[in-house]
Amino acid sequence: MNTFGTRLKFTSFGESHGQAIGCIIDGMPSGIKIDQEYLQNEINKRKTGNKWTSKRKESDKALILSGICDGFSNGAPIAIIIYNEDQKSKDYKNIKDIFRLAHGDFTYYKKYFIKDYKGGGRASARESVARVAGGAIANMLLKEFNIEIESGIYGIGKLNIKKEKFDFEYAKQSEIFCLNKEKEKTFKDEILKTMKNKNSIGARVFTKIKNLPIGLGEPLYDKLDSKLAHALMGINGVKAIEFGAGIDASTMLGNENNDILKNNKFLTNNSGGILAGISNGDEIHIKTHFKPTPSIFLEQESMDINGKNIKYTLKGRHDPCIGIRGSIVVTAMTRLVIADALLLNVISNIKNIKKVYS
Amino acid sequence: MNTFGTRLKFTSFGESHGQAIGCIIDGMPSGIKIDQEYLQNEINKRKTGNKWTSKRKESDKALILSGICDGFSNGAPIAIIIYNEDQKSKDYKNIKDIFRLAHGDFTYYKKYFIKDYKGGGRASARESVARVAGGAIANMLLKEFNIEIESGIYGIGKLNIKKEKFDFEYAKQSEIFCLNKEKEKTFKDEILKTMKNKNSIGARVFTKIKNLPIGLGEPLYDKLDSKLAHALMGINGVKAIEFGAGIDASTMLGNENNDILKNNKFLTNNSGGILAGISNGDEIHIKTHFKPTPSIFLEQESMDINGKNIKYTLKGRHDPCIGIRGSIVVTAMTRLVIADALLLNVISNIKNIKKVYS
Amino acid sequence: MNTFGTRLKFTSFGESHGQAIGCIIDGMPSGIKIDQEYLQNEINKRKTGNKWTSKRKESDKALILSGICDGFSNGAPIAIIIYNEDQKSKDYKNIKDIFRLAHGDFTYYKKYFIKDYKGGGRASARESVARVAGGAIANMLLKEFNIEIESGIYGIGKLNIKKEKFDFEYAKQSEIFCLNKEKEKTFKDEILKTMKNKNSIGARVFTKIKNLPIGLGEPLYDKLDSKLAHALMGINGVKAIEFGAGIDASTMLGNENNDILKNNKFLTNNSGGILAGISNGDEIHIKTHFKPTPSIFLEQESMDINGKNIKYTLKGRHDPCIGIRGSIVVTAMTRLVIADALLLNVISNIKNIKKVYS
Amino acid sequence: MNTFGTRLKFTSFGESHGQAIGCIIDGMPSGIKIDQEYLQNEINKRKTGNKWTSKRKESDKALILSGICDGFSNGAPIAIIIYNEDQKSKDYKNIKDIFRLAHGDFTYYKKYFIKDYKGGGRASARESVARVAGGAIANMLLKEFNIEIESGIYGIGKLNIKKEKFDFEYAKQSEIFCLNKEKEKTFKDEILKTMKNKNSIGARVFTKIKNLPIGLGEPLYDKLDSKLAHALMGINGVKAIEFGAGIDASTMLGNENNDILKNNKFLTNNSGGILAGISNGDEIHIKTHFKPTPSIFLEQESMDINGKNIKYTLKGRHDPCIGIRGSIVVTAMTRLVIADALLLNVISNIKNIKKVYS
Repeated sequence: MNTFGTRLKFTSFGESHGQAIGCIIDGMPSGIKIDQEYLQNEINKRKTGNKWTSKRKESDKALILSGICDGFSNGAPIAIIIYNEDQKSKDYKNIKDIFRLAHGDFTYYKKYFIKDYKGGGRASARESVARVAGGAIANMLLKEFNIEIESGIYGIGKLNIKKEKFDFEYAKQSEIFCLNKEKEKTFKDEILKTMKNKNSIGARVFTKIKNLPIGLGEPLYDKLDSKLAHALMGINGVKAIEFGAGIDASTMLGNENNDILKNNKFLTNNSGGILAGISNGDEIHIKTHFKPTPSIFLEQESMDINGKNIKYTLKGRHDPCIGIRGSIVVTAMTRLVIADALLLNVISNIKNIKKVYS
Repeated sequence: MNTFGTRLKFTSFGESHGQAIGCIIDGMPSGIKIDQEYLQNEINKRKTGNKWTSKRKESDKALILSGICDGFSNGAPIAIIIYNEDQKSKDYKNIKDIFRLAHGDFTYYKKYFIKDYKGGGRASARESVARVAGGAIANMLLKEFNIEIESGIYGIGKLNIKKEKFDFEYAKQSEIFCLNKEKEKTFKDEILKTMKNKNSIGARVFTKIKNLPIGLGEPLYDKLDSKLAHALMGINGVKAIEFGAGIDASTMLGNENNDILKNNKFLTNNSGGILAGISNGDEIHIKTHFKPTPSIFLEQESMDINGKNIKYTLKGRHDPCIGIRGSIVVTAMTRLVIADALLLNVISNIKNIKKVYS
Repeated sequence: MNTFGTRLKFTSFGESHGQAIGCIIDGMPSGIKIDQEYLQNEINKRKTGNKWTSKRKESDKALILSGICDGFSNGAPIAIIIYNEDQKSKDYKNIKDIFRLAHGDFTYYKKYFIKDYKGGGRASARESVARVAGGAIANMLLKEFNIEIESGIYGIGKLNIKKEKFDFEYAKQSEIFCLNKEKEKTFKDEILKTMKNKNSIGARVFTKIKNLPIGLGEPLYDKLDSKLAHALMGINGVKAIEFGAGIDASTMLGNENNDILKNNKFLTNNSGGILAGISNGDEIHIKTHFKPTPSIFLEQESMDINGKNIKYTLKGRHDPCIGIRGSIVVTAMTRLVIADALLLNVISNIKNIKKVYS
Repeated sequence: MNTFGTRLKFTSFGESHGQAIGCIIDGMPSGIKIDQEYLQNEINKRKTGNKWTSKRKESDKALILSGICDGFSNGAPIAIIIYNEDQKSKDYKNIKDIFRLAHGDFTYYKKYFIKDYKGGGRASARESVARVAGGAIANMLLKEFNIEIESGIYGIGKLNIKKEKFDFEYAKQSEIFCLNKEKEKTFKDEILKTMKNKNSIGARVFTKIKNLPIGLGEPLYDKLDSKLAHALMGINGVKAIEFGAGIDASTMLGNENNDILKNNKFLTNNSGGILAGISNGDEIHIKTHFKPTPSIFLEQESMDINGKNIKYTLKGRHDPCIGIRGSIVVTAMTRLVIADALLLNVISNIKNIKKVYS
């Protein structure tokens, strides 16, 4: 339930307004350099505090409690803890008994008979700090093989950037992880307008995986795209996932969609780098679609736990566009999937195994 | 790898041109009526043999080998076997060493160092007969609670049926599982044209789950939509998945997307029946997007296992549009996920558990 | 539930008097020679039909249905089916509603509300033919690394063979897998006496694993001895397990028990070849203790499903000493555990992984 | 690897001389009273500091970081952290490169290429504080159903207490958890003598489970005794496990061993409360056998990581008899297994499930 992964297992804990958020990464091979500064930098990328995010102020300092010996992984589980600091539970008092729209309030209450109203409890996006920490650790394994995973924003509401214009280098420095310098201003204006209107807005994320070995993914029910879809659809606010040509593939004819293989290269990449659930050596391309933040500052109608129709207006601190910080979480979850697949693939055939035991 | 599910576990085996395809369904509670006729009828829905499918002729007779006592499940694993009959391996002789485009040939060979050329081996869509069998068994549990899952085709290539026009009753009798009677002819014509051109075409499937209890789905990494995405993305040819408003949600503002809850009903269903990964009592709505069949009868360029660029033309028997029979597999996998979630949810809270032990 | 193993997964199905017993072995690396004759020979070792076993006559012919390409594993699941032939369900009519002592009748009925009286249903020792098949397949992987697992009988009732007298070569040809030629006659006489008295008798099995690489076993909750104990305690009739000095270790002082390591050899083997849950390169030594067969031909008191006290006398065909054929199952389950551990260990450290990906 | 359990999952982290030991308990149903005082009391039972244990002084204060809402479990993972305090890593400097006998030093080094010499790292018995914490949480679920699990010492070295003389109430107050008041002095004297001789000694633990519902245990590979054996054999120093008559069962005849069922009661309990892997409503009886503590203060021969034969004498603080505190860990692991089995059994049959959904 709160564990993800087959061989590299990531388990998280913590509620939005509890004492801490944290995770355990189990299955990390021994001998990998654990770079604490890199871990902290990755976590900082999803930090709140600027104009485009919630105003909640968290230092988000990650403490590694175990699994390291002299700077290298020792094969034991790596536990990471991030203490919560700036919980303002009083912001939530007025909605204590209310089911906020498009949130987990209603379903959690019906499933668990508990209403953990403070900041959304376990269902809060605050939990994603653990995912980012886990993804950063996983990436330390991927770096050993030069595998790179990058994400950026290519759509906000009805605005889009064309694939030809994607600039992943620029996205790294953009406050809103925008995939194109020229479009960034338009995107920002759209978000500002939304904020001014006490509203929120949806977004679209593009993810690219480079230098992936051929052969990752375990057929039939743990195909690489299956596992990625599982991971990404589990991120708060995600409503759709596409690989390669994605939805457009369903509008194509066979000869348009089939990627020709010539001179050991695929001439196109409609497959998105995955054939029959296994990486084919080409770049993996994923599109992830986020709904608008459910928390807006307009008055809305809903119900309370006593079954009464009510109206409510939210206070508190909420991102206007969850997709922006969501893109960091997309990268993190993708890293966890790829690192897991990399380990699992090692034992696919007897040739590999003989390399190790002889 | 070849097992799907947490508490209701489905494990399949078999290659396209091997002796048999089969599966084991483990975790079925005892006391459920096992209806063998229903099982066979469900399997027949994905059978080949008509104009819109491969011409391979399989009786696809399902034999239940275990797990039943006097017509009811006995709590033991239910094994089902379907013998292969109409393998024509000679159709594949001429492509023995060739990597067919958009197939698993290339990636399986690189991962396993084996080229199981006969009909695609394990990666063949023939394996999906096991999924349909498993889904039919799972549905015997769902029927006890009146839960219904239905799928149909709403798009072929660039043609579409609007949501308001969906007719799931009609889809059941349509040869191509088309969701609208009036559009069926246009869809069929499009497919026929494609066949005449030795080409294939993509398709889109809509799935609806009715009468689902509130509370299904296990946060955080086994959310209901996560598990469904995992299951559906693992079907051959699927390139994208959407829940509720799906991709459109990313173009919306918060107040447009948030489904208002009033008088115990959601006024809209942008969420697709899932909030924070847990079913909210509304209908579940899923869109699944299939690429065109990779096997077409036009000459294509590719490579062989010796690294030589080659040209090839396929013989054999292939569906012009894998999405059509794919829709049956979508329903089957959805049933497996929902039955599993139904069982897992039973032990979510102490109230439920006390009902059983006291 | 009906699956065993982490990376090499064994799933079985089938009831004693159902149509077939079978299993799926998933996770076998590709490229391993699949020797069908060897498989059949291994299965034949646990066959009924001689004086020391049940008189049920089964040809126990194993059919491999999938997972092989040109004689080698192809990375796909290997399914094996063994049809039941000599079911005599009428032998069980008179005990249809009776809870046979020391059997699963009572507990299965209370758990599942089903009384599958025919030959014990799923709880029957007949199921172990699937375990032996699975173990034989696993052993094809172990052979690649020269790992050998052997078991034999060293105790029957109150009779024992001393460790110094164990002869594993002789056990292979002994009808009762006896670990010493001289003692075999005494053991056989004891069993014959028991049979004459319509009674049954317990037994003890010694298992040895040779040529095991150092490093197998995954701490902390999947230690090698943990997994072996799990596997062996799950065999019908097993009531105790010991590793190395076993129970005697608890009577020792530290300096007596600690195995001295000198010149890269352990001078003694009280540890049984496992330190902190990981193989240390020495031989693994396991003792498995079987209770007497529950089915005896003396009249016994029990109850029926209506809660009435009754007396019953069994008909049918039952082994006088389940430990004898049990020893074959011990070897089989041990093979499954060791093959799984061998695969899992490959990805323990970055050195191994780099050997594969570069 | 570092997770135990199927539905109630326990994951631990932490090394002996790292910053903290901790665990996550996932799958706890919502609505269970979480008693922090009880948790602390249970942890205190295995604390060091008296004459019979290591002199390491740990306050072992358990902090619950998540999973609670207003004093009750909320369905989210429960994370517990216990900071290490009294690490004296300098005690270990002189054995930095030495493989201590009967420890994990040798096997961990060969598996991970890392020598985490400080207090044994992950392989240290210090980790068991997390197991005790997990077991205490699991027990909060068991209390709801009046299930009780108790353990005590019935043997030290060659000394024994007969089963008829077991007094579990006395064991609770005994400093060495001795199952008989009169024998306690003899046992203590034996330990003191051992300590004086710079040696250590083995021990035997008896565990009793009362008020267990019929039906727990999931056949065939997750039988209740299988899972218990898995859990207990994974505790540091355990070399043998017995259920019910255990080893003695192998010396019996069928009519001696079969427990007669009469008037809804079993007249004897050779089965140890488990039939065919499922609890039969009788008390569960388990014997767990611990080797002597590997760390003794006599000079011993071994090797170092450079392959040199050496002699070494340990400093530091070590229990003279690991079985004593081990008995607390036995209880804890048993609680985890039983709580898990209790949850899994809920969904065994359709009757139970209908109680919940209707």
